Amino acid sequence: MVVSRVWYLTRRPEGFPRKDDFTLKEEQLPPCGDGEVIAAAEYVSVDPYLRYRARQIELDTVMTGTAVCRVIESRNSEWPEGSYLVHNTGWRTHTLLKKESLESSSYFGGCFRLPDYHGLPRSLSLGALGMPGNTAYFGLLEICKPKEGETVLVNCAAGAVGSLVVQIAKLKGCKVIGFTGSDEKVSYLMEIGADHAFNYKTTPIGEALEKAAPEKINCYFDNVGGQFTAEALPHMADFCRIAVCGAISTYNDESKDIGKISMTSPYSEATILWKQLRIEGFIVVHWQDRWTEGIEQIKQWITEGKIKYRETITDGFDKVPDAFIGLFSGENIGKAVVKV
Amino acid sequence: MVVSRVWYLTRRPEGFPRKDDFTLKEEQLPPCGDGEVIAAAEYVSVDPYLRYRARQIELDTVMTGTAVCRVIESRNSEWPEGSYLVHNTGWRTHTLLKKESLESSSYFGGCFRLPDYHGLPRSLSLGALGMPGNTAYFGLLEICKPKEGETVLVNCAAGAVGSLVVQIAKLKGCKVIGFTGSDEKVSYLMEIGADHAFNYKTTPIGEALEKAAPEKINCYFDNVGGQFTAEALPHMADFCRIAVCGAISTYNDESKDIGKISMTSPYSEATILWKQLRIEGFIVVHWQDRWTEGIEQIKQWITEGKIKYRETITDGFDKVPDAFIGLFSGENIGKAVVKV
Repeated sequence: MVVSRVWYLTRRPEGFPRKDDFTLKEEQLPPCGDGEVIAAAEYVSVDPYLRYRARQIELDTVMTGTAVCRVIESRNSEWPEGSYLVHNTGWRTHTLLKKESLESSSYFGGCFRLPDYHGLPRSLSLGALGMPGNTAYFGLLEICKPKEGETVLVNCAAGAVGSLVVQIAKLKGCKVIGFTGSDEKVSYLMEIGADHAFNYKTTPIGEALEKAAPEKINCYFDNVGGQFTAEALPHMADFCRIAVCGAISTYNDESKDIGKISMTSPYSEATILWKQLRIEGFIVVHWQDRWTEGIEQIKQWITEGKIKYRETITDGFDKVPDAFIGLFSGENIGKAVVKV
Repeated sequence: MVVSRVWYLTRRPEGFPRKDDFTLKEEQLPPCGDGEVIAAAEYVSVDPYLRYRARQIELDTVMTGTAVCRVIESRNSEWPEGSYLVHNTGWRTHTLLKKESLESSSYFGGCFRLPDYHGLPRSLSLGALGMPGNTAYFGLLEICKPKEGETVLVNCAAGAVGSLVVQIAKLKGCKVIGFTGSDEKVSYLMEIGADHAFNYKTTPIGEALEKAAPEKINCYFDNVGGQFTAEALPHMADFCRIAVCGAISTYNDESKDIGKISMTSPYSEATILWKQLRIEGFIVVHWQDRWTEGIEQIKQWITEGKIKYRETITDGFDKVPDAFIGLFSGENIGKAVVKV
């Protein structure tokens, strides 16, 4: 019998999430049935969007999240022992996977098979070679559609998604301006090729953009929303394309939930109208059918040395909530994952 | 010598525009030179966007606006006496038009030649067969891209643009919900084919949409912004396309100017993100190259009886400011024009 450790969401976070919103439990898995496998998590992913999910999932259920897992027991010939998969297991050390999940190609319901990584770490399947990688790839290329010579703005630029947006935009011949939350991260942004990088905690956003982009911004990859976007919006060029990838400034604020009537957004009607802006929210599973395309392209760029990646790895399954909470105080550079 | 009457903007409107923001003057036109014509306005257009322009143009200059004019004196063989043109003359009875304007195909700087109207009134060149017509045509078809069977929401639905959006959306096989500001206009909307029509002054927007569109809204043609949009946004379907055509609720509010830092918009980041909305501001001159296409199509629909039009005609050039101010208290059904 396999025992899994599982982080439950046992209290609805209010504002900033706290460790005691979560409770660690142990569960005995049922025996592995015909067509099923048992998988052991090697790395568990923590992602900002989970703060939002923590409002939606039922209390006293396992907290949502994705993991890369090794099959340790198999009664499914397609997934033999020792094979690896990415699955939205939730925050669990061990998971029994049903036949339907193993056969599904849906990102959230199914299992994604790891391609040959040519020696790259498997944790990348949760970062540059996984959901965050494709978020940067499709969000930037399909929504912002940057053209050579254009100016691209990205915030949370040292994060899992942002750091890839910076580099993909550079590969496309753009001028790139990144904002992040510490001087160490500013240095990292310069290291990965940003033309300008600023610490938003110490630099007035408008003044920085006035100097760094007097020509105005053609593409804005927004992970933040709120005050950052309000201050950045006057610096958009006519016909600027804005990809709303995240809104981390709102995730701890229930008045800004989806479907709530709100008059506190930064996306000013007058600026949208007279600058003819295009603003598009997206969730990366929209490009589920092209999933492999993005991953393979980023993998190629990494192996050619054209894209660098960083990970912030927290050790130990008992630290999953800490790693998650750390996202909101900006503790990570690159992708935050937990090694089980 | 030709004497023109001219409305000057002599005081910057604060909030709601007032008649004494404008001053009527007389000006003697210079003689008509080689390649030039003198044109007499037959109808002058008043449009909501001019409230916004009144913040931008210099004080003590002629107020911006478009007119359909008859050439009364010509030294340009392309534009003989008796020909008609649409030009952004400003609020003037008579205008001397230079060669460059007569030759330019730019909407705001040039002259648009009236096609054969087959007996339709020339005032339509300022409405259904002019800028407002093309605004409805291109904004709806190119930004909202409504598909048969989808649900379309439009506000200011009995106005010059909105009443065409309602009818074009119906021609494309959509279910159409219109909001307007009086019961008389609600009746007009039902007459032109809206599936549901509401008076926003007496009907709670959210409740009305809950009942009229439980399936949610796929296309939103927004002329208003502000509180209306805040209340409508929760009723958008995933992947809803929003054409930001106007923001009349903000035009009297300087804190909402283009380029001002604002955290008072209704376009909630969380709703944009999780519903994957696409919001696009537009100005119709973006489709200047396809101007004739839109006009010809609408003219055909009108002559086939598929599209109805209404005009609110104010008599007398001295009433231009009154007609303009009336736009903001909702006095017009269909296009508001002034007969000179």
